Amino acid sequence: MQAVYNIAEICARHGITDVVLSPGSRSAPLTLAFARHPNLTVRVVPDERAAAFIGLGIAQAQKRAVALVCTSGTAGLNYAPAVAEAFFQLIPLVIFTADRPPEWIDQLDGQTIRQRNLYGAHAKGAFEFPVDISHADAKWFSARLVNEAINLAQAAPAGPVQVNVPLREPFYPKAGEEIRYEQDVKIIRESGINSSLEAAELQALANEFGNYSKILFVFGQQPDGESPPFTDQVLANANAYGDEISGAVFIGDVISNLGPGQIIAEHWHIIRSHDVTLAGLSAEQKYLLQPDLVITCGLSLISKSLKQFLRAHPPKQHWHVQLNGATADTFGSLTSIIRADPNRFLTALLECTSPLWLLPDEINEARSNYQQRWTDHERQAKQLLNEGINFLDGNSHKFNEFTAFKRTLAALTPHTALHLANSMAVRYANILGIPQGRHIEVFANRGTSGIDGCNSTAVGAALAQPERPVVLLTGDVAFFYDRNAFWHNYPTPNLRVVLFNNHGGGIFRLIDGPRQQPELEEFFETRQTLTSKNTARDFNLRYFPVSSFAELDAALPVFFAAETGAAILEIFTDSKTNAALFEEYRTAVKQAFS
Amino acid sequence: MQAVYNIAEICARHGITDVVLSPGSRSAPLTLAFARHPNLTVRVVPDERAAAFIGLGIAQAQKRAVALVCTSGTAGLNYAPAVAEAFFQLIPLVIFTADRPPEWIDQLDGQTIRQRNLYGAHAKGAFEFPVDISHADAKWFSARLVNEAINLAQAAPAGPVQVNVPLREPFYPKAGEEIRYEQDVKIIRESGINSSLEAAELQALANEFGNYSKILFVFGQQPDGESPPFTDQVLANANAYGDEISGAVFIGDVISNLGPGQIIAEHWHIIRSHDVTLAGLSAEQKYLLQPDLVITCGLSLISKSLKQFLRAHPPKQHWHVQLNGATADTFGSLTSIIRADPNRFLTALLECTSPLWLLPDEINEARSNYQQRWTDHERQAKQLLNEGINFLDGNSHKFNEFTAFKRTLAALTPHTALHLANSMAVRYANILGIPQGRHIEVFANRGTSGIDGCNSTAVGAALAQPERPVVLLTGDVAFFYDRNAFWHNYPTPNLRVVLFNNHGGGIFRLIDGPRQQPELEEFFETRQTLTSKNTARDFNLRYFPVSSFAELDAALPVFFAAETGAAILEIFTDSKTNAALFEEYRTAVKQAFS
Repeated sequence: MQAVYNIAEICARHGITDVVLSPGSRSAPLTLAFARHPNLTVRVVPDERAAAFIGLGIAQAQKRAVALVCTSGTAGLNYAPAVAEAFFQLIPLVIFTADRPPEWIDQLDGQTIRQRNLYGAHAKGAFEFPVDISHADAKWFSARLVNEAINLAQAAPAGPVQVNVPLREPFYPKAGEEIRYEQDVKIIRESGINSSLEAAELQALANEFGNYSKILFVFGQQPDGESPPFTDQVLANANAYGDEISGAVFIGDVISNLGPGQIIAEHWHIIRSHDVTLAGLSAEQKYLLQPDLVITCGLSLISKSLKQFLRAHPPKQHWHVQLNGATADTFGSLTSIIRADPNRFLTALLECTSPLWLLPDEINEARSNYQQRWTDHERQAKQLLNEGINFLDGNSHKFNEFTAFKRTLAALTPHTALHLANSMAVRYANILGIPQGRHIEVFANRGTSGIDGCNSTAVGAALAQPERPVVLLTGDVAFFYDRNAFWHNYPTPNLRVVLFNNHGGGIFRLIDGPRQQPELEEFFETRQTLTSKNTARDFNLRYFPVSSFAELDAALPVFFAAETGAAILEIFTDSKTNAALFEEYRTAVKQAFS
Repeated sequence: MQAVYNIAEICARHGITDVVLSPGSRSAPLTLAFARHPNLTVRVVPDERAAAFIGLGIAQAQKRAVALVCTSGTAGLNYAPAVAEAFFQLIPLVIFTADRPPEWIDQLDGQTIRQRNLYGAHAKGAFEFPVDISHADAKWFSARLVNEAINLAQAAPAGPVQVNVPLREPFYPKAGEEIRYEQDVKIIRESGINSSLEAAELQALANEFGNYSKILFVFGQQPDGESPPFTDQVLANANAYGDEISGAVFIGDVISNLGPGQIIAEHWHIIRSHDVTLAGLSAEQKYLLQPDLVITCGLSLISKSLKQFLRAHPPKQHWHVQLNGATADTFGSLTSIIRADPNRFLTALLECTSPLWLLPDEINEARSNYQQRWTDHERQAKQLLNEGINFLDGNSHKFNEFTAFKRTLAALTPHTALHLANSMAVRYANILGIPQGRHIEVFANRGTSGIDGCNSTAVGAALAQPERPVVLLTGDVAFFYDRNAFWHNYPTPNLRVVLFNNHGGGIFRLIDGPRQQPELEEFFETRQTLTSKNTARDFNLRYFPVSSFAELDAALPVFFAAETGAAILEIFTDSKTNAALFEEYRTAVKQAFS
């Protein structure tokens, strides 16, 4: 088993610190190897579906790979939803699935399935650990492939890899026997790519950039710290906001994290209310916003209005900046894939290109006009949300989730890791915006937009960064789906779950199609009667149920106080009221921009 | 959408009656098609993992295919554990996964993964529904492939198939608009295979059979009604038990259902305590039991002792009878695969072969001796379990799960569908045996032996046959893993869950390897503190907690009474006591046969 024990050593030497493990018999040698390693934190989570999302949450928070370990059989299949999310959200997971040796597959033995390449198209790679290590070549291979797997998981674009480990009995060392980790184990390090464009290529793009009047930068999902600062040098001598220098418009989706840790948030006017704006504008107004050039980086966008707008009003050019890997043509108008680190490229581009005041008057004026339209709309949208919609403020209105959501956002403490569950939580946040200036980092499982692991991902974040407040905003279907997130023995005093319980999939009542079908309640909304009271009891979470603005206002400060410990704030609302007020919001948006 | 609506019609025309659906937006046209069909019972279950196992439970109970419907994204991946179980347990599931059209895959849209062939090696087939149905050929194709998928799922060996259905907006008909099902929709029927051997081939096997002295028939997992009756004709003129006529030994594993509905159970002596016997016998005693010929049918065996015995003492010949599909070499000694219906083949074989009293004296005597050994051991084992182990009877002993299990089995009502969860429940039942003469049918997810869907499978069974008592015997890890089994709006008054709660994976304390490791409690057994009290509250299940023999004895009749309704009997025991008494049982077995 020495080669198996060495797996833990290789993981540790590659900087992996956290392992999430689900118990099993076949996986015992892996369990012992990881559990006894002095440099690894190993946590046990019995439900593999939750375990994998907890691992994903840890990796998301720590911004480095996490190892998962499970036994043979369907254990590994329960990882599949989290593996797909990791694949599309580019999160490195190294998955060790214990297996029977190949000769015993399909022989009617227990907990035996076909584990080779278990995750199919949703893993970056699948490796098969050798069964017999007696030959020296096999030993070299066994260490080499673990290195390859970890390097592949971490290389941009990062993602999940599987290492299938067939194991023969006996699984256990003798009582009292120690495990040895070979210190001269083979390690292969791989540096990151840090590609910049050639000067001539960059200059050509900068020249082209200079010709356009209507320029949109659009930032999709990315972790805090990954969006381009590209400002220090540019701004130093300019004494102006970056968008004033370039004349371009910068749109930051709610999951783009354009804000907390970045200079850009302080030195650029970022459009954040585009979802509201574009839902309200008339066809003519939208036409005036049609861009010449769109430059994107990051992953998905929450704003359906923005995607639809750009699909209906395509730019002449769409440049997407991405170091490596397959590229999406999200708006159907992609023209250039720029293989560079977005950070470096955008800094370099803005240094190369002429500032607004040196451009020909015609372009100067056109850019300024274009910017002005967006910022006017932005101001209108903010005003609408802050003052223009009565029910969002008034205690005199019926208690509803939209208003409760706004107040909850307003009460968030600085440096919160904010987890937005699918599907309504992330949409409300996208409309309302995240409070600025509090260094709130936003997370959401938008790789696959599933509801299956939202609790677990937040639990993983809370475990990974115990000093940081972690807040999950979620709905009842996502919450109850993933209750096993809490079924383990690790405290998460920094975790707060805000559960908007309208007793069903509220989103189906908010969209036109299902709302008009007689099947709405039974087959779409799926009325469900659970409250989280018993879940709170089961897992020793403090429980704050609220059903009115007065109760909510009273609960919020206590709920978010650091000394409160792990807690659920359950906000009960009526889905019909929510739907009626959401309709009122929609009407108000249309009127505001007409 | 007509071609999509027709899917429901084709399913109904193929005899599918039950559909389990999880809500979603992309899947709306499928939802409406199934929900509105007059001949289909559609149930909504939000957690797709539970939904798929509930569908599997319905299919298992009804012995026909069930349709599953889910939306795009990771929804379908949550089906994967149940799909693998269905694949290895040969249960027909027809899985409809809604998808985006192919051009929008990998374009950063929400709930979009790579759904083609989503279940890889664990589906019998994967079909891609056409996106555009405007051409007549496409319409023919769309109906044809649904027929092909259903026929493939049902053809022996049955199993799961995927039909991926890419859908473009708009998903919903106008308010009030009706859905039409085309009555002349294309239907392709496929008859079952009912292969019998050629007479000459059969005679050759019968002749060979006649030459052997030590013959074992071993029956693995199979539903009630599928094991061979092959007795009527043979027994009619013989006035003897079938094993007396043939001189062979018949072993029925606990999941073989050799019993309830079959003539064989009444007219044959079936060895059922082989697991106890073979764990107790000395090497010499086992050597005397080494068979010449083993004939098997059915799927997996619970009894590890039996598998190990046959691997260590291989027969000269191992014939496996299976109509179709890949065949396992479970003992490493497979020599013949007989492509015939087991039922027909075994009847014909026993009709062709000479009865014991017409065989040469030498063989006659050898067969009788061989039988005698097995039946002697069987009697010893039964005596041991009934009288020989004090703690299994005495109220004076500490309360423990082994004894509680025995009493619970004894209290089962006739015609129960008994679901045995992995991993300890099915093992205890294998040791103790199922009460005979009560027509109890045994179910267990031994295709993959996972703990991930035991509750849900039992819930599916209860929904499928509301008039029949359905009893699940389970442990705490399997129970809490799959609590979402109960998260839906359908009553199951016939369901009883007996939960053996020892606060951890008790099996790890019963096997030697992990028991001796310092990691036992944290990394193997995984101590967990939940009780099902709050789960019972959440889902309106009556709750019977017991911690002593007196409480258990008092609870059992009330718990199993028909009028009690859906209920949990939670049997609290101490894992250390359980482990100590299991060790005592092991010692007693060794002593009994020495």
